[in-house]
Amino acid sequence: MEEESRKFTEADATHKMEGAADGEEIDPESDPLNEPLLKRSRTISSNALAMVGAKVSHIESLDYEFFTGFIYFTGANFLLTMSAAVLCACFAPTAAGPGIPEIKAYLNGVDTPNMFGAAPLIVKIVGSIGAVSAGLDLGKEGPLVHIGCCIASLLGQGGPNNYRLKWRWIRYFDNDRDRRDLITCGASSGVCAAFRAPVGGVLFSLEEVATWWRSALLWRTFFSTAVVVVVLRAFIEICSTGECGLFGTGGLIMFDVSSVTVRYHLIDIIPVVVIGIIGGVLGSLYNYLLHKILRVYSLINQMGRIHKILLSLTVSLFTSACQYGLPFLVKCRPCDPSLSAAECPTNGRSGNFKQFNCPNGYYNDLATLLLTTNDDAVRNIFSTDTSTEYQIPSLLIFFALYCILGLFTFGVAVPSGLFLPIILIGSGYGRLLGIAMGSYTDIDQGLFAVLGAASLMAGSMRMTVSLCVIFLELTNNLLLLPMTMIVLLIAKTVGDSFNPSIYEIILDLKGLPFLDAHPEPWMRNITVGELADAKPPVVTLHGVEKVARIVEVLTNTTHNGFPVADDGVVPPVGLATGATELHGIILRAHLLQALNKKWFLREKRRTEEWEVREKFTWVDLAGREGKIEEVAVTRDEMEMYVDLHPLTNTTPYTVLESMSVAKAMVLFRRVGLRHLLIVPKYQAAGVPPVVGILTRQDLMPYNILTAFPHLEASSKGREKEN
Amino acid sequence: MEEESRKFTEADATHKMEGAADGEEIDPESDPLNEPLLKRSRTISSNALAMVGAKVSHIESLDYEFFTGFIYFTGANFLLTMSAAVLCACFAPTAAGPGIPEIKAYLNGVDTPNMFGAAPLIVKIVGSIGAVSAGLDLGKEGPLVHIGCCIASLLGQGGPNNYRLKWRWIRYFDNDRDRRDLITCGASSGVCAAFRAPVGGVLFSLEEVATWWRSALLWRTFFSTAVVVVVLRAFIEICSTGECGLFGTGGLIMFDVSSVTVRYHLIDIIPVVVIGIIGGVLGSLYNYLLHKILRVYSLINQMGRIHKILLSLTVSLFTSACQYGLPFLVKCRPCDPSLSAAECPTNGRSGNFKQFNCPNGYYNDLATLLLTTNDDAVRNIFSTDTSTEYQIPSLLIFFALYCILGLFTFGVAVPSGLFLPIILIGSGYGRLLGIAMGSYTDIDQGLFAVLGAASLMAGSMRMTVSLCVIFLELTNNLLLLPMTMIVLLIAKTVGDSFNPSIYEIILDLKGLPFLDAHPEPWMRNITVGELADAKPPVVTLHGVEKVARIVEVLTNTTHNGFPVADDGVVPPVGLATGATELHGIILRAHLLQALNKKWFLREKRRTEEWEVREKFTWVDLAGREGKIEEVAVTRDEMEMYVDLHPLTNTTPYTVLESMSVAKAMVLFRRVGLRHLLIVPKYQAAGVPPVVGILTRQDLMPYNILTAFPHLEASSKGREKEN
Repeated sequence: MEEESRKFTEADATHKMEGAADGEEIDPESDPLNEPLLKRSRTISSNALAMVGAKVSHIESLDYEFFTGFIYFTGANFLLTMSAAVLCACFAPTAAGPGIPEIKAYLNGVDTPNMFGAAPLIVKIVGSIGAVSAGLDLGKEGPLVHIGCCIASLLGQGGPNNYRLKWRWIRYFDNDRDRRDLITCGASSGVCAAFRAPVGGVLFSLEEVATWWRSALLWRTFFSTAVVVVVLRAFIEICSTGECGLFGTGGLIMFDVSSVTVRYHLIDIIPVVVIGIIGGVLGSLYNYLLHKILRVYSLINQMGRIHKILLSLTVSLFTSACQYGLPFLVKCRPCDPSLSAAECPTNGRSGNFKQFNCPNGYYNDLATLLLTTNDDAVRNIFSTDTSTEYQIPSLLIFFALYCILGLFTFGVAVPSGLFLPIILIGSGYGRLLGIAMGSYTDIDQGLFAVLGAASLMAGSMRMTVSLCVIFLELTNNLLLLPMTMIVLLIAKTVGDSFNPSIYEIILDLKGLPFLDAHPEPWMRNITVGELADAKPPVVTLHGVEKVARIVEVLTNTTHNGFPVADDGVVPPVGLATGATELHGIILRAHLLQALNKKWFLREKRRTEEWEVREKFTWVDLAGREGKIEEVAVTRDEMEMYVDLHPLTNTTPYTVLESMSVAKAMVLFRRVGLRHLLIVPKYQAAGVPPVVGILTRQDLMPYNILTAFPHLEASSKGREKEN
Repeated sequence: MEEESRKFTEADATHKMEGAADGEEIDPESDPLNEPLLKRSRTISSNALAMVGAKVSHIESLDYEFFTGFIYFTGANFLLTMSAAVLCACFAPTAAGPGIPEIKAYLNGVDTPNMFGAAPLIVKIVGSIGAVSAGLDLGKEGPLVHIGCCIASLLGQGGPNNYRLKWRWIRYFDNDRDRRDLITCGASSGVCAAFRAPVGGVLFSLEEVATWWRSALLWRTFFSTAVVVVVLRAFIEICSTGECGLFGTGGLIMFDVSSVTVRYHLIDIIPVVVIGIIGGVLGSLYNYLLHKILRVYSLINQMGRIHKILLSLTVSLFTSACQYGLPFLVKCRPCDPSLSAAECPTNGRSGNFKQFNCPNGYYNDLATLLLTTNDDAVRNIFSTDTSTEYQIPSLLIFFALYCILGLFTFGVAVPSGLFLPIILIGSGYGRLLGIAMGSYTDIDQGLFAVLGAASLMAGSMRMTVSLCVIFLELTNNLLLLPMTMIVLLIAKTVGDSFNPSIYEIILDLKGLPFLDAHPEPWMRNITVGELADAKPPVVTLHGVEKVARIVEVLTNTTHNGFPVADDGVVPPVGLATGATELHGIILRAHLLQALNKKWFLREKRRTEEWEVREKFTWVDLAGREGKIEEVAVTRDEMEMYVDLHPLTNTTPYTVLESMSVAKAMVLFRRVGLRHLLIVPKYQAAGVPPVVGILTRQDLMPYNILTAFPHLEASSKGREKEN
């Protein structure tokens, strides 16, 4: 499925180009967009032949045809952006952005509503096609990850919420753990489809997305990416005759730089270290600025749908104007005589050395980078053995433009990935650095662009192993590996010393209670008992509870779990009677089920085992939550009883009240809990069996610091634990 | 460090060849081993010229010189094996074998004594050089992993046990977590050095070795392998003139098959699936047979050092005899005329198409595979575009021989890795399968050998992602990736349906209490309370305890942790007095410290805070354990008291007695515990605050089944949880 959507994306992405670059293989009659430009191009070409030298200021010669071309180009982009933005704003707001932070949060235990349904899936696919085709500075990688997760989730539950398949075996997947596994596999498959990097996909899930990991999951994700790669291969084979548009270009390796022999010596470690440091600084600066801009954007987006759409359209207009106008600023360059006429200049859908407004035998290097698909832009700037292709001003304009676009495009309400914009910025500065190094090093400028892209990715996203493998699979040059590793490590280290990774920043902005792997150091100075004392007292239910009390508790609290304890039981060992027994924890959903199904008893007694077997099935208990307001209980029923014992989870995880919050958090996160009961450290008659209950929200650093401001002081001088 | 040792290994590994293959670049005068063979070779060559046709039975012409050559060859191998075996048997028995299972167990929390010291390090380096040079069918990969871990451990603690550096900052690494991290980095570096596969090394640690994993560790291991790769590059550059022997052959990519263009279609999925299935079956068969042989070997090895050494020497003699004698059985083959005289036949230290006993213009294909270093054997059998190089009988002999050697060599008392023997077997059958496929597929026979090796590895070791990346980095052919993935997944799946992985088998054989990631299904049917009841009652100490009681408890039990509880305390909330307070858990080591340092009190009272600050330093507590027999306490002191409060860990992890063993095990393993306290679910006066204590041994399935045989029945029909 991903492959197909991907194919469409790429094919459609070329539409915008047909308005800009005049393709010789496109029939001018059939495509009205091309007509004015084609004429113009011919005019220029014949003019140019008459001229001596190539010093022609094309800005002055801007005339009617170029203006029409601009209108068509901008108009098409405008409409495509509008379709994507309208879809996102009206039908599935969760489809905007990359979706990766929400997936990361989901796998950590935080569910974002409407994230993995059919609506986000369709909007994401169509919207991503629209946004990428509109030439916006955004990638399809993040959206593909989200698409993969949506498909995985839908497959796991047997279809969209309202039209689920009722096959029995599907129910086996309908539990939290398998759903998490499926979504992890979906994320891997998405990365694999986006970069054609199967191992990179597995590692991306492992390093960035997943919270809990086990070896079974490792090979399951590996299996799913293997399937993706086989399907991808099959489609590439089917499309080898070229009828699928740009799909399949480059085969399984998207940005192949294996042709260049990497010759480097120990002395080359200096430029590599420089790239890493600059990448780290730029990456963290990018994170910082993006954070500020996303704050402003979120204010705008909150103002309503119209504002969301208008913001997207403004960005689209600005992008189109820059992409169309800026290439006129740079000088045409003569083609290298060693290249054939088919190679330089080119006018087709893809290809290096774009002719744009230049005479025959000349090319416009900035148009080569701007007026093409993002994938082709990367391919062109990564191209090796082309050290004279780009002029410094063109690269500077390219770099500056994509810095601005990369910052201002990401937050708009269309499906957008972060990978490609960062690769574009990074490759621009990498290539510039390569030119600046000049004859100091033998490393090809194309490789500098690759390393620059890698460094900025690591500086912003702070991944190492997965990026390394993704770049290896993208570029197919194993000899580049040592350099890539050093660059990634340096950029990550430098970036980490300034601010957190971009995904963590977005998680924080979205207010998702993500539970970190490491407790803050000041959490060692507070016990869970103190934390529980600062909260409202815990509500404990009896093993056989009155209906009225259950209704009251459910109405007055929003808790999702309640401890169940029995009073006055006789312990098996001959001890004093009147002991209290902690029976377990019961979920709000199960209490609601009990009320809904009216599992009431006339007298206060425990149910027998045969009654339990008759009454409850696991299908009933797996049902989704309702609301207490929807439950109808008569006055008579209010006086009846419910035996909670069969519905109780009798083996809850517990901590002593003297446990430090840091250690409780380690338990909470490692085991993957939703509720953690706090039991007293005192053993005596009259001591309540449970003194508190901890949830994810209670363990969020911000919430603890609000209740205990004195910890703030100690957290100021905190040291990073890892 | 690893690189240097590696260099020596490879350089020395060629000695055995010099006795077998006569190298033209070696001065015959300076090396007496070569003399007889060189003469013989010349004789044969001149004879051969006089002959018409090539049908000469070389077995009949076996004469004095070949016999001398055999004696020298076998003698040298014998001596090298003896040196390795004597070192292992006498100085560091832990250095025998690969060491990977013990490392895996260590990272799971099971410490094997004398595993990471200076003695195992030196013996492993020297012994591995000896064993590999002796031409035994074993690899240097496992030993390099162990060497890496030893170096990491020594660096972390500042040197060998008796000669430690006393620098203050080194102490910061001297804790369990950092030691584990360092050893994980060492393991990654070892794999990286062995295969020149940095990412493969990281993934190997992740998939096979490590039990607990966090993202900080991911990039630390990545950093260590990056350093290894830079050092490796530097040495390759220094050695580029060839003065380092075979080190550096192939550059960073050991078995390069990137020259062949991989053309495959969907139809080629059939041979790929077949390879996978056969690999899985063969791999599990290998595991099964190796298990049986290791059982027999362990009986022999237990009989004493002499038996260990004799066993190694027998295997060495058998190996040498086969390697020297078998090539005489096959016919000489004429060189392909398209190859230059320098390429075929070869006589040097390395190279394809070995001449051995053949006339000029002819080569012996079995000698090409047997009479060379193991690395070169792999290189030759992986070589592409050489579809006519090997005859089927040669490959059959090769395959059969290495199956036998691979089974019988592994258990002997020398440092030995499993990777290379399995690669050799797998490549043999892969190549045979390639020949059998004939014209059905376009896939090169060399690639069949690669896929065969991958399938057997997955079938025996059951790794997926790490093997995939290791093979990618070994062979530098990204287009092979989809096929490798499918082969690995199928082989692993097929293998898993027969028996566990080879490392798990070895762990089980060694009796190391490895804690699995997943509890057995029948563990849900038993509570920790029941488990605790089957054990001797828990020994609880008081907060302020009499010295006599501490001495008694330490003498009579072997427990490593004791709960500490206070009687008759008054809880802060106004409850009935006489409550019992669970204070925490105290370690045997700390009790011994208290006795050794004589932190005694004359009266029964709690120490003040200033006393604590004055008396205890963390350096005292970090000291290694002593023995209770070495503690001298006078009769007077026996009547004194120790305040255990400052020494107690006040925040132990606890579970309720109603918790199932399965869930307790999840907590135990995920959080990485050594002791788990069981607290009662009843709350009443007189209930003991702790009803039991769980350790790793209590949670081992075998031990539980011994105490509760009825669970066995339910475990019979158990279903695998993952």
